[in-house]
Amino acid sequence: MKIFSSVNDVKDLKKLLKEAIDFKSNPYTHSELGKYKTIGLVFLNPSLRTRISTQRAAINLGMDVIVMNMDKDGWALETRDGVVMNGTTVEHIREAAAVMGTYCDILGLRSFPKLKDKEEDYSEEFFNKFVEYAKIPVVSLESATRHPLQSLADLVTITESNLVKPKVVLSWAPHVKPLPQAVPNSFSEWMCAAQELGMVDFTIACPPGYELCNDFTNGATIVHDRDEAIKNADFIYVKNWSSFEKYGEILPVEKDWMLKTKDLENTNNAKVMHCLPVRRDLELSSEILDGPNSIVIQQAGNRLFSAQAVLKNILENI
Amino acid sequence: MKIFSSVNDVKDLKKLLKEAIDFKSNPYTHSELGKYKTIGLVFLNPSLRTRISTQRAAINLGMDVIVMNMDKDGWALETRDGVVMNGTTVEHIREAAAVMGTYCDILGLRSFPKLKDKEEDYSEEFFNKFVEYAKIPVVSLESATRHPLQSLADLVTITESNLVKPKVVLSWAPHVKPLPQAVPNSFSEWMCAAQELGMVDFTIACPPGYELCNDFTNGATIVHDRDEAIKNADFIYVKNWSSFEKYGEILPVEKDWMLKTKDLENTNNAKVMHCLPVRRDLELSSEILDGPNSIVIQQAGNRLFSAQAVLKNILENI
Amino acid sequence: MKIFSSVNDVKDLKKLLKEAIDFKSNPYTHSELGKYKTIGLVFLNPSLRTRISTQRAAINLGMDVIVMNMDKDGWALETRDGVVMNGTTVEHIREAAAVMGTYCDILGLRSFPKLKDKEEDYSEEFFNKFVEYAKIPVVSLESATRHPLQSLADLVTITESNLVKPKVVLSWAPHVKPLPQAVPNSFSEWMCAAQELGMVDFTIACPPGYELCNDFTNGATIVHDRDEAIKNADFIYVKNWSSFEKYGEILPVEKDWMLKTKDLENTNNAKVMHCLPVRRDLELSSEILDGPNSIVIQQAGNRLFSAQAVLKNILENI
Repeated sequence: MKIFSSVNDVKDLKKLLKEAIDFKSNPYTHSELGKYKTIGLVFLNPSLRTRISTQRAAINLGMDVIVMNMDKDGWALETRDGVVMNGTTVEHIREAAAVMGTYCDILGLRSFPKLKDKEEDYSEEFFNKFVEYAKIPVVSLESATRHPLQSLADLVTITESNLVKPKVVLSWAPHVKPLPQAVPNSFSEWMCAAQELGMVDFTIACPPGYELCNDFTNGATIVHDRDEAIKNADFIYVKNWSSFEKYGEILPVEKDWMLKTKDLENTNNAKVMHCLPVRRDLELSSEILDGPNSIVIQQAGNRLFSAQAVLKNILENI
Repeated sequence: MKIFSSVNDVKDLKKLLKEAIDFKSNPYTHSELGKYKTIGLVFLNPSLRTRISTQRAAINLGMDVIVMNMDKDGWALETRDGVVMNGTTVEHIREAAAVMGTYCDILGLRSFPKLKDKEEDYSEEFFNKFVEYAKIPVVSLESATRHPLQSLADLVTITESNLVKPKVVLSWAPHVKPLPQAVPNSFSEWMCAAQELGMVDFTIACPPGYELCNDFTNGATIVHDRDEAIKNADFIYVKNWSSFEKYGEILPVEKDWMLKTKDLENTNNAKVMHCLPVRRDLELSSEILDGPNSIVIQQAGNRLFSAQAVLKNILENI
Repeated sequence: MKIFSSVNDVKDLKKLLKEAIDFKSNPYTHSELGKYKTIGLVFLNPSLRTRISTQRAAINLGMDVIVMNMDKDGWALETRDGVVMNGTTVEHIREAAAVMGTYCDILGLRSFPKLKDKEEDYSEEFFNKFVEYAKIPVVSLESATRHPLQSLADLVTITESNLVKPKVVLSWAPHVKPLPQAVPNSFSEWMCAAQELGMVDFTIACPPGYELCNDFTNGATIVHDRDEAIKNADFIYVKNWSSFEKYGEILPVEKDWMLKTKDLENTNNAKVMHCLPVRRDLELSSEILDGPNSIVIQQAGNRLFSAQAVLKNILENI
């Protein structure tokens, strides 16, 4: 693996899952693999789980880590070509990515979408240019439209339950701010891939107008009735996202989509997932988060081993 | 040791002091103890000495270090339970602490008091909740009411002088901003413990209205006449704090409490201490700071070995 | 070497260049030299190349690295002596530098000039005081008037071309903001030293009023006609700087000083250099930056091995 930005970058999904789960039992089996190798983690946006879990994953593999908070520690980046840089941007991504590519062996990049121009965000221009100019392996730490390290950890969490073809439901949730579609896009993309392998049965529940981009949901069952969707569910993945159709907008929603304990009655005692950070009692009820059905901390914990499996695969191909 | 937030967390104070002093001579005696262990240092406030000395202490023990500037690199934290998170806080401490606890083996936490609500600050709600949810060993890097790594270094500094039962005076100093009581509370708590062991004779000098909370000063002699207090003193610990009684306020003070060289005349050629950062010629005169009686740099240097002794004890109990 | 701030700190320039070039082929020949040694990198200003390349250089030598973003993670520093610190500065450089000197084995310091007071900037007061109080080896990561790690990498880049006494031209370029003279001062200082050793032939081209301080240009040919200057040039180093004479000002310039491909016609197929970050199509044309004559990424890549050679020399003298 040279680039990790999507499930399509994974040659053998089941093998990758097994490697992640193996690291959970034995984190130090490859603690010499990363010797003399440095990963640079480049953040254009805040990060807690991704920041710490990827650092620890690299450490467990014997790598060195350099963290770069690009906006605060470095220079404001220009991404457009052909513009006279006489404004506020100080450095072009062409140089910045190329230079970091010379100092590091692997780069990780976090860059959120602006949620203003659908085409710009969905072209993944920033991530793709970074990859092009860096010329070394790059791991997405969440890009405009995907969060693959999160999705891998999500699938690890579902897989380690050992349920046979569990019913997995991605369920939209309310929020006060317009959020990217990266996490649900990515989750859907990975679940559809897992469904093709016979690993899960995947449904998306969202209010009308909140349908995700088709490119990511191919194979998923999409319904607007949340209660209907979660019947017999084994896993409910709760997540807010802003509208893809009316790009980046928050649409009026009639029903109360925040999941509560009583909503779990008709499920198969469903485990509840969320990528975190979660706004309590807005996106998801405290009673669920603090109750026996929540597996959000286990899920977040799997971020570490998922990142470690990805970095292992990249290190083996350097 | 699993939690280090107070002198009460220390089973054998003399042993801990000896370990710190031993590290000063031989920093690498335990350089393999922390192999495969990572400490996460979580800062909600600025830090120079604590930040660097704790990193170096962990490094000397063979640990890996991940630094998290929570407010800048991560998400604004909610601490209250039962609130709908539809405001500015993005993540609840319940999840944030639990997640960091899964990625790290030890956590360090710095969180200042708000100095608005005495009960809230003195309940140590934030630190205690962090400990509760993190579920792994936690070291205070200064909390609302205590700064134990500082106090341990202070006691190391006094101990390594080899004076028999020296007279130690904590002396209030002026400032332009209302500062927490954490450093003086903690210093007093540790000195009272050392006094019980017959190691020091401890006095606090402060203007009326600046008495510290009783919980921390039990056993100390408290006087309002500074000149009287420092008579025959071997160590004068200069520090500003805001009023505990009129919580967080700066009260009018009649005399000039800034220590000058001539004030040392009736002392036992007292060594002058300060936790730093110090505002020169406001809290403490430059003539003292630059003169032979100041041991503030030696004192700051001992932060490293104190942190190393604490981390050693925690590592031995993981 | 104990201090690295200028070419004058280098005993044997050719040996240092060779060591840097050797590290480029074999980065891990001294990977145990820095064991048990920690470098603290202190930034008062943004940094990308210096930040990452110096970290990687230290890592390659087996050192541990602690990064301190002084203004954001620590306290605002006072540098003046004899002032009552009742304003916005929280800590004096006397204490801050001394304390960091006790926790680290080597320090790196980045501090830009304010460009308001020529005498203050050119006294290098901040860097010099930091060195004085830190009492351990200090590497300049760019100071008010010099950027020696950049200049060493520049000379490495020119040297590894294996041209015999190449013609090197430092060519002023336009900008929208007043920039320090540190990079051109330092480049000129190093080129003049290399010229004395018979390694290069050095010319500076700048508009009238943009002459650099004599202290750094002793031995250089200084011309105001850019086209004349770059005739038969082997290397053109493009860089903006603000006026030294009218200190920190941007002066009106008649001709278009931005280098374009057609300007290279009368050169010796000159390689084009820039320290980066570069504002495209303002300082330097995209056609050159993206064309075959640009060696800016190679040049930036050499920052790593230059820093590694410097740190090696310091480590060997600790």
